[in-house]
Amino acid sequence: MTDPVLSLAGLFPPVPTAFDDQGDLNLDAFQANMERWNSEPLDGYVVGGSNGEFALLSPDERLAVVRAARQAIPQDRFLIGGAGAESTRGTLHLCQGMAEIGADALLLVTPSYYKALMTTSALVNHYTYIADRASVPLILYNVPANTGLNLPAEAAIELASHPRIIGMKDSGGDIVRIAGLVEATPPDFQVLAGSASFLLAGLSVGAVGCVPALGNLAAEHLARLMSLFHAGDIEGARLIQQAMLAPNRAVTSQYGVPGLKAGLDLRGYYGGPVRGPLQGLSESDRNDIERILRKAEIL
Amino acid sequence: MTDPVLSLAGLFPPVPTAFDDQGDLNLDAFQANMERWNSEPLDGYVVGGSNGEFALLSPDERLAVVRAARQAIPQDRFLIGGAGAESTRGTLHLCQGMAEIGADALLLVTPSYYKALMTTSALVNHYTYIADRASVPLILYNVPANTGLNLPAEAAIELASHPRIIGMKDSGGDIVRIAGLVEATPPDFQVLAGSASFLLAGLSVGAVGCVPALGNLAAEHLARLMSLFHAGDIEGARLIQQAMLAPNRAVTSQYGVPGLKAGLDLRGYYGGPVRGPLQGLSESDRNDIERILRKAEIL
Amino acid sequence: MTDPVLSLAGLFPPVPTAFDDQGDLNLDAFQANMERWNSEPLDGYVVGGSNGEFALLSPDERLAVVRAARQAIPQDRFLIGGAGAESTRGTLHLCQGMAEIGADALLLVTPSYYKALMTTSALVNHYTYIADRASVPLILYNVPANTGLNLPAEAAIELASHPRIIGMKDSGGDIVRIAGLVEATPPDFQVLAGSASFLLAGLSVGAVGCVPALGNLAAEHLARLMSLFHAGDIEGARLIQQAMLAPNRAVTSQYGVPGLKAGLDLRGYYGGPVRGPLQGLSESDRNDIERILRKAEIL
Amino acid sequence: MTDPVLSLAGLFPPVPTAFDDQGDLNLDAFQANMERWNSEPLDGYVVGGSNGEFALLSPDERLAVVRAARQAIPQDRFLIGGAGAESTRGTLHLCQGMAEIGADALLLVTPSYYKALMTTSALVNHYTYIADRASVPLILYNVPANTGLNLPAEAAIELASHPRIIGMKDSGGDIVRIAGLVEATPPDFQVLAGSASFLLAGLSVGAVGCVPALGNLAAEHLARLMSLFHAGDIEGARLIQQAMLAPNRAVTSQYGVPGLKAGLDLRGYYGGPVRGPLQGLSESDRNDIERILRKAEIL
Repeated sequence: MTDPVLSLAGLFPPVPTAFDDQGDLNLDAFQANMERWNSEPLDGYVVGGSNGEFALLSPDERLAVVRAARQAIPQDRFLIGGAGAESTRGTLHLCQGMAEIGADALLLVTPSYYKALMTTSALVNHYTYIADRASVPLILYNVPANTGLNLPAEAAIELASHPRIIGMKDSGGDIVRIAGLVEATPPDFQVLAGSASFLLAGLSVGAVGCVPALGNLAAEHLARLMSLFHAGDIEGARLIQQAMLAPNRAVTSQYGVPGLKAGLDLRGYYGGPVRGPLQGLSESDRNDIERILRKAEIL
Repeated sequence: MTDPVLSLAGLFPPVPTAFDDQGDLNLDAFQANMERWNSEPLDGYVVGGSNGEFALLSPDERLAVVRAARQAIPQDRFLIGGAGAESTRGTLHLCQGMAEIGADALLLVTPSYYKALMTTSALVNHYTYIADRASVPLILYNVPANTGLNLPAEAAIELASHPRIIGMKDSGGDIVRIAGLVEATPPDFQVLAGSASFLLAGLSVGAVGCVPALGNLAAEHLARLMSLFHAGDIEGARLIQQAMLAPNRAVTSQYGVPGLKAGLDLRGYYGGPVRGPLQGLSESDRNDIERILRKAEIL
Repeated sequence: MTDPVLSLAGLFPPVPTAFDDQGDLNLDAFQANMERWNSEPLDGYVVGGSNGEFALLSPDERLAVVRAARQAIPQDRFLIGGAGAESTRGTLHLCQGMAEIGADALLLVTPSYYKALMTTSALVNHYTYIADRASVPLILYNVPANTGLNLPAEAAIELASHPRIIGMKDSGGDIVRIAGLVEATPPDFQVLAGSASFLLAGLSVGAVGCVPALGNLAAEHLARLMSLFHAGDIEGARLIQQAMLAPNRAVTSQYGVPGLKAGLDLRGYYGGPVRGPLQGLSESDRNDIERILRKAEIL
Repeated sequence: MTDPVLSLAGLFPPVPTAFDDQGDLNLDAFQANMERWNSEPLDGYVVGGSNGEFALLSPDERLAVVRAARQAIPQDRFLIGGAGAESTRGTLHLCQGMAEIGADALLLVTPSYYKALMTTSALVNHYTYIADRASVPLILYNVPANTGLNLPAEAAIELASHPRIIGMKDSGGDIVRIAGLVEATPPDFQVLAGSASFLLAGLSVGAVGCVPALGNLAAEHLARLMSLFHAGDIEGARLIQQAMLAPNRAVTSQYGVPGLKAGLDLRGYYGGPVRGPLQGLSESDRNDIERILRKAEIL
């Protein structure tokens, strides 16, 4: 790539999709959330990612959410569209649609249903086919907790040399793997920590940024962690990292998207309902989240 | 259920979906295949299941395949439509569409993308919501090799009391679990072995039928295994079971859907291409399959 | 093997080791238990297996338990000694000691601490080294729930041709694997189900016997299941199999050796304490076991 | 603890045990190795750990190795003895023996054979029983790649308050877990990275030291990484960390103890044979290791 590279150094939270009480898209509430995030210290957004409940949206809904986001996001912040699908042709279709709408880059989760056949060869072919035809930069997305599949490091390393594939979001949390990906890929291949829980560790081994669900709630804390790290104050960064562990867990592995939406409600954003088969939280779980966010000074 | 129950005792192979060289549906070839299967000793078909590459089809394509199958299947054979989707609303939509087309029953794979949140409670709610609204019988579908999720036995046992949920296809191969499901569910809840590799073991612990990928190629062998078992000739059934292990592995865990389609080509059916990210087989793999099928006297 | 083969067709429960209140061996109580089992419809015993807490015994204690068992077991019942250890030399040492004491055969669990290196080659070398030097028949022992290692089927198949290796106990419960082992090994290689939970399924695919923890408590039920199976009454066998699922689970995966010893206490045998880090059961867990055994008519 | 705490800040490589060609202990060669390590920038040693093939030694041999090490290690370097065993009583016996010999602290791997029963409660009781009776400080040891068991974080956090339990070696590499352990335990509870592959990431989240197999070969590199980190030069530390990934993998997950011993041979130490069931390396594997060590400037 001879053009100035789209820089992924920074924070790109995966924004939730807003639904109304009937379970339909609530794009007004979604755009109102976006306006508020625009005043937070963030560098862009992942729209229609795992936290955006993309797996529960129809293809048309996925495009509609990206379109609504594009209207609400200023040009100096990146819109990264979640465009992964199980089939190669379905993925390409979404990529083309989101690129036309104005997505700056696209995040492509590994196909995983036929996981026994998702060899390095199959995945390299899948991503290469799309990258050869895509008009915007692509970011690989490894999230074994959802897919039950770990994108082989060999596949990522091979794909990193494709000029359209600029980076990878790794949510697996295997820090040795992340260090190895940084070491084995070209300097302009950008690795993103897939969760705030290993942001500091990720930065220490060469990740440049993060796609933190917690960034929807605690952008300032995470931005401060990054700036302390870059200023060489590891101890300071470490203290923030420690404080962010419990709230990060609450809105990811512990309570998931329902927990994240409950956190948004508590912070005065629109959280609202999740789609089935996800379930809303009990009152007691919401209270637990409130307590955790307060203790971490996020509320 | 006071009506005569839809009996799942028998063989219901999951038929592959046919594509042309451009990767589009080839419904003519699909219907020609169906005509041939209609003369085999089978009791019905699963249309649009995992071996039907449902995960690589659009919702409209999934309905089109069921429609084409319905035209080709005589009324005395059951058409079981694969109608599972990640979202509850998407699943219901497919259920309604397939019921209108004439599916006799529907097979509902577990949603799995948000697997950490797919608790017994969430899955019971998901299936109950659909069962309360469905107009045809439903069959639960557990296939951890694809979904990375094991439908909790507790969930299946609870759901077994719903009048619309008549059985379960279990492809996990855990024979103790299958025995336990038979033991803990009402007598009219029907358990299906999800693969021919544990057909005999499944029958021995109370499964009533099977959804065997291998049934697309070796219906006679499997029908004979079942009739020997029911005649009390376990030793005879065991010899067939042993002979079927290698070909079953070839068209499932070893070579997957591409292997099954290669087997169809070899048997004179239309196999044809798979959709990406699945990949066609090498010549050497096809030769391996041919050798295996010949040795088992399937060719 | 040209000698009459040691037949493993039958029931060989893995007998618990008895400890006194100080945690020392209680060989008197152990021998008293053995006397009672001798009047049950059993074909032999595994002494010093997983249910014998072998992993918590010193090498000297392991030999002492086999010696005590030999004194109590009539010559027409087989004594199978658990002689596996992590090191090849340690395993051989135990094999020689137990053979001298009079063990009829030896059960050798897979070494597993260096599991990443326990390749087919390493395991074949390990077992072959011992088999070449052993003076009694050997039985492979695969128990992934304890070892975290699945003995590769390829290794077992290769080892099955060694004249000193007469069979395999597989506790993994993967019935397709068991069927495949029967299919791929010589007719005189004998496969044993490692748990009563898949006894019927195991018999149906060609296993000849079982090493059931539950056999310590319910020998008559299991012996009846086997004789019904051999008489062709699968339905009768299946009803017993179903009734045995809950008690089997109670004394294996649910409550483990402490549960088995509690069951012995309830049946009037000497159960007694387990060794740390195993823990005795709470009163409520003991009551649960009593309830389960009563319901299955074992008490 | 009111005494000056034994500080685990630093590098404590797990030294291999030396065998002669008959497979017996070669304590002379072992002590000669120790003399050379004494001139390297190390802070102490783990003797009889996983890399010391403890699982393949008899209890007497384990004590003999610690005794030989004590003779060769100066008083200003710590000798940490590997004293874990499956049984609580066996572990205590080793602890007492090694303390008498002069071990400064003891490393206690989780018992794991009865892994389904190794609940938080069982593990807390096991370690507490020993800690209440031990005369030297204890270090918990979590190594799921060998044990197939992940010491529950809750157990570690509870045990961290015992005055005799001063820290934990975690070899699992889960950096979020390590960060969480640092956060949830008292300031004087010391967490050690169990492998050089996540040394930098570990330090960044609060680990104080490391037990690196690679430290037997590359003490200077790792010591330099640590001092750069403490000087705030993360980028410099990161470059060393990257260069150490391949050699670390070679002597751990890729080639294991046989690889580590091959590396010792190449560096002029005594490597020598491993014990069965471990196997020596092929010539081609040894050449691969030589190439990797040269590229990393360890040779």
